[in-house]
Amino acid sequence: MHFADALTQRIRDTSPLSVGIDPVMERLPEGIPKTIAGASAFCRGIINAVHDIAACVKLQLACYELLRGEGMQLFWKIAAYAKERGLVVIADGKRNDIGSTAALYAEAYLGKGSPIDALTVNPYLGADSIQPFIEHCVRNDKGIFVLVKTSNPGSMDLQDLPVGAESLFEHIGQLVQQLGLQHLGPQSRLSCIGAVVGATYPEELKYLRSLMPNIPFLIPGIGAQGGTVDDVHHGFLTNGTGAIVHATRSVIYASSGKDWQEKARAATANMAHYFTSHFVPSASGSGKSTQL
Amino acid sequence: MHFADALTQRIRDTSPLSVGIDPVMERLPEGIPKTIAGASAFCRGIINAVHDIAACVKLQLACYELLRGEGMQLFWKIAAYAKERGLVVIADGKRNDIGSTAALYAEAYLGKGSPIDALTVNPYLGADSIQPFIEHCVRNDKGIFVLVKTSNPGSMDLQDLPVGAESLFEHIGQLVQQLGLQHLGPQSRLSCIGAVVGATYPEELKYLRSLMPNIPFLIPGIGAQGGTVDDVHHGFLTNGTGAIVHATRSVIYASSGKDWQEKARAATANMAHYFTSHFVPSASGSGKSTQL
Repeated sequence: MHFADALTQRIRDTSPLSVGIDPVMERLPEGIPKTIAGASAFCRGIINAVHDIAACVKLQLACYELLRGEGMQLFWKIAAYAKERGLVVIADGKRNDIGSTAALYAEAYLGKGSPIDALTVNPYLGADSIQPFIEHCVRNDKGIFVLVKTSNPGSMDLQDLPVGAESLFEHIGQLVQQLGLQHLGPQSRLSCIGAVVGATYPEELKYLRSLMPNIPFLIPGIGAQGGTVDDVHHGFLTNGTGAIVHATRSVIYASSGKDWQEKARAATANMAHYFTSHFVPSASGSGKSTQL
Repeated sequence: MHFADALTQRIRDTSPLSVGIDPVMERLPEGIPKTIAGASAFCRGIINAVHDIAACVKLQLACYELLRGEGMQLFWKIAAYAKERGLVVIADGKRNDIGSTAALYAEAYLGKGSPIDALTVNPYLGADSIQPFIEHCVRNDKGIFVLVKTSNPGSMDLQDLPVGAESLFEHIGQLVQQLGLQHLGPQSRLSCIGAVVGATYPEELKYLRSLMPNIPFLIPGIGAQGGTVDDVHHGFLTNGTGAIVHATRSVIYASSGKDWQEKARAATANMAHYFTSHFVPSASGSGKSTQL
């Protein structure tokens, strides 16, 4: 199934939430050894806690790369486990390079049989560097999320620079919409080419939604980064789909005690309840808040 | 020793060349099994062939990531081996993310005791995303190379966009020069913050050299990508240092036969001869061409 159709269905079945599965040794809760085996148990525990109330998990590759070869083995095992449990799996690598190397990244993460459904991609190298990812999306029913306006304070340094009458992020937003229009899902009318737009810039989010009506948004920055659930309202389409809202630290490190799984589920369920009751009509038209 | 001082000394002792250690299974030469062990033997063989005539090796992370956990174990082993053999080791990951995640990437690749000397970094997320890398450079005598003008045709899509009276890549070049000035090596007067500038745009390379007098350049794009050794002339400082010229495919896959090591050494030696006889005065003032 086309990535955007599968994502839309999954949002309807659960919530528009994405939860970060980002093991950081010093932050592992009480009772979890600070080892690869401990990190593995923690990641699986969070997946088990949220698998039926979140649409997606997002694995931050930096957390795994820090643990070197063993960490990357863990990354692939955790991605496969999340996929098994029915979640849409996003690898957050913000990868890119010149075309011939971009093709290797695309094959590595979005190849046939990979448990990864989508990868985040950096646009700085231009359209020819994005093309190999798009080819893999089309061939293997995968997705990408291109960085448009990131959630950090420094995103204004380059992304807000004026390019003629518009800003650089607007320019990239238009490019993503143009590329995306060529690859829409037959059910959702959304593209397999998505965009990363931070919750910390709600005005820009609203504007980019109008500029990119066919583009799924991955919206990080709520919780620890300061964005609120209200801030992301305008990232959704009027039918309540088209966006995934991502949180990590406020969910998976909600408790450092033995109740870490319960607290992670409760934090996810709270947000899911908010979104499903406010924005997301289910396939039958009724909210899903009773599930929570 | 400060990264730029060590790099400059190494260029004087060998040549301003960087060789890619990028194992691609389908391209491994005759007699090398298409396995992790085969890739390892190939990488070590290339390192042995060029260790005394190249300043650096650059490991393209995509090649290793494609081989998953085992590939990343290989990456760290090959990086350590290259370091042992005296080479300056560059990890080409074009990494970056928001500050808290950038700090994880910086620790992963530029942490204390890492065999990696420098990492390539993508500037799209802004100055606060580059800061954690700079902190690691200063603390651990490491370096970064920030993408300014990349060698691919699509680099013009974003990097050449007009920002006021200048282009985006000029703007980033100025930012890199400003940041770099704060962290100069006492001997070389060059910064631990470098720039990636493609050989395929010789005019831009010349202009960026004038804009960034204290910034070491990593110049990819000669050989298979079409840049010539003449094209990179203007990337050097007048004293013949300040730049590393990188080639991969034209060197390491120069032969698919059993003479792959000899051919890789010959291709490197040819280029090294060109550069050392044209641009690089040794510490004593005489060329190094007699070594070759």
